[in-house]
Amino acid sequence: MSNDTLALAQTLIARRSLTPADDACQQILIDRLEKLGFHIEKMRFGDVDNLWARHGNTTPILCFAGHTDVVPTGPLEQWDSDPFTPTIRDGRLYGRGAADMKSSLAAFITAIEAFLAQHAHHQGSIALLITSDEEGVAIDGTAKVVETLKARGELLDYCIVGEPTCSDKLGDTIKNGRRGSLSGNLTIRGIQGHIAYPHLAKNPIHLAAPVIAELAQTEWDQGNEFFPPTSWHISNINAGTGATNVIPGALNLLFNFRFSTANTVDSLTVKVHEILDKHGLDYELQWELSGKPYLTPKAELADAMHAAITQVTAMEPQLSTSGGTSDGRFIADICPQVIEFGPRNATIHKLNEYVEVDDLEQLSRIYLLTIENLLVPASETIQENPDSFINKLKKYFNFK
Amino acid sequence: MSNDTLALAQTLIARRSLTPADDACQQILIDRLEKLGFHIEKMRFGDVDNLWARHGNTTPILCFAGHTDVVPTGPLEQWDSDPFTPTIRDGRLYGRGAADMKSSLAAFITAIEAFLAQHAHHQGSIALLITSDEEGVAIDGTAKVVETLKARGELLDYCIVGEPTCSDKLGDTIKNGRRGSLSGNLTIRGIQGHIAYPHLAKNPIHLAAPVIAELAQTEWDQGNEFFPPTSWHISNINAGTGATNVIPGALNLLFNFRFSTANTVDSLTVKVHEILDKHGLDYELQWELSGKPYLTPKAELADAMHAAITQVTAMEPQLSTSGGTSDGRFIADICPQVIEFGPRNATIHKLNEYVEVDDLEQLSRIYLLTIENLLVPASETIQENPDSFINKLKKYFNFK
Repeated sequence: MSNDTLALAQTLIARRSLTPADDACQQILIDRLEKLGFHIEKMRFGDVDNLWARHGNTTPILCFAGHTDVVPTGPLEQWDSDPFTPTIRDGRLYGRGAADMKSSLAAFITAIEAFLAQHAHHQGSIALLITSDEEGVAIDGTAKVVETLKARGELLDYCIVGEPTCSDKLGDTIKNGRRGSLSGNLTIRGIQGHIAYPHLAKNPIHLAAPVIAELAQTEWDQGNEFFPPTSWHISNINAGTGATNVIPGALNLLFNFRFSTANTVDSLTVKVHEILDKHGLDYELQWELSGKPYLTPKAELADAMHAAITQVTAMEPQLSTSGGTSDGRFIADICPQVIEFGPRNATIHKLNEYVEVDDLEQLSRIYLLTIENLLVPASETIQENPDSFINKLKKYFNFK
Repeated sequence: MSNDTLALAQTLIARRSLTPADDACQQILIDRLEKLGFHIEKMRFGDVDNLWARHGNTTPILCFAGHTDVVPTGPLEQWDSDPFTPTIRDGRLYGRGAADMKSSLAAFITAIEAFLAQHAHHQGSIALLITSDEEGVAIDGTAKVVETLKARGELLDYCIVGEPTCSDKLGDTIKNGRRGSLSGNLTIRGIQGHIAYPHLAKNPIHLAAPVIAELAQTEWDQGNEFFPPTSWHISNINAGTGATNVIPGALNLLFNFRFSTANTVDSLTVKVHEILDKHGLDYELQWELSGKPYLTPKAELADAMHAAITQVTAMEPQLSTSGGTSDGRFIADICPQVIEFGPRNATIHKLNEYVEVDDLEQLSRIYLLTIENLLVPASETIQENPDSFINKLKKYFNFK
């Protein structure tokens, strides 16, 4: 079973699972999990394939979460090899999803296989929550599975999300939280008119400028130990008829907050309305909350993963809450400890996405040791009894 | 020859002279002018028909200026009658160009015909400068004719532009100048980035906001006796990739000055650059001068027209410099006194454009009396010798 994680990653990358398509990736996982005695539940919502699989009936439940869908490839001619033909060059495995996140899925499976080979009768449960819509609208994916589990009282204790979290080297970063994302669609109304008769018009661009300036300078909070201060940014602004002699009647802008547990949705929306009202604007504002922030304290899961990473890579991983949102925001609703860890994210969503081949078995081993740290009494773990396991492991991972 | 101005206006409106097409309107004028002994010069530049016609070889030269082209009709089904089928309803003549400015062209011709019938051997010259591209890009129209005349030293003394200048009643407004129009195409550069990593990006919308606020509040000048203060307005602003999670790399905006003889192009551009530079922006700015301002002092032409209007309508016309630009901006380059006077402008460029039928002969008579006031010794004018002309005039205009 030499380099089994690589083989499985290659099999998954070869599937054209453009979001929200799963393209039978989940069945490949299911085939392996069924052999391990997992209870399999396919949860299809709308066009989205989801998988809930569980081994064991007791608590604590340790869940691995991830997605089989990938983002579009971009221009094919700019890839050095076909994105759906997994290709190894110079010690790297290239392909769409190599880093985000089919390698993590492969490492989940091989880690669980290795664990169960040694601990068939482990305490607690091992579970997988896999969706095919993380990169898309993410409505019928993890959010719906979490709803279903919550409705039947099946709550999680620990969850490892396999998102690519590392920056420069495998092992440098664990994410223990994510900021929330709150968006606004703001229309400021003026009065349209001919630019030669400005006294008959009211220019919404001019009305908006001091308000934008004030919002951009506002300090929303100072962040906290784990989060940077909340940021507010406009992504799009548009006004004008195209004609150069017409003062437009309205201005539209889309803005977004990335906010932390140091603030709340209520407080942010109230403050924005206060500023808009203070300037006497005639406006319409629609809010959309894409994700609440979540934060996992330094506790069992973070410690278990930290120890595993240090043992495998000799790195001291940093806890981080940076970056965009992830499905962790949904899972946090039913799980007090959610941690994200996966390979380097330098090439995700880009051309020539890749993962270092050597990182694949290391990642699998990190997941394996993390399971052991959480579900196996200390006396039985690899760490505590290296002599009893080391030869088997060496053989299993084909280490030199 | 009863209501001849109406008949000619109808003939012109029936021509589909959508800018820059003339659709043989000028030939209709030429046929009339040739009978009067005018020297005709067709000046075609590019796709644009222009006409220069002159009667007399001495100075002063009094020129009538106007255009045969019309703006598009807009949705035909929203017109109560076909825009190119001149239609009289309730004392109004409906059709595209009825007010802007085929009625003025008709009144030019009938006024000149009436004048020459009485003053075949007038002093000075009467001229017409007619283009078919005033409503369009206006590159090969009046500007080119003026260039040609200037090159051969044929300068004008007085020019009456037949643009519709009146607001509520025929006779209420003469335009003795127009503001200039100076446009800018401004791109403000930032650094594009993911909205979740704002420290790696530089939001050009946020950078622009305080600058726009300052520009919008700037007092550029206080205007002068004839002009309101210079105005600065943004007509279009655009930034954003469409994606809601991307800080855009650049912002583009189009702005426009309407400025008077109280300011200069140099002074305005210098001040804008000063403000942009003060804020440390990385920007690109392209300027376009669409028209310099012009101003005609209260002198012979304004006085002659004022007297004629008062005599015909019993109104006291106001001098005004409001509104958009007109071909007066080009003519002012070779003519020290340019005045604009024509019918009410309430329906120009709109659906169901019309002119009051009663205004047509009044307009013709105003032009006639203005010519007399300028080119006929006081002892020979209608005003000074009403008894000798009044019966002929009554008969000519078919007054009750």
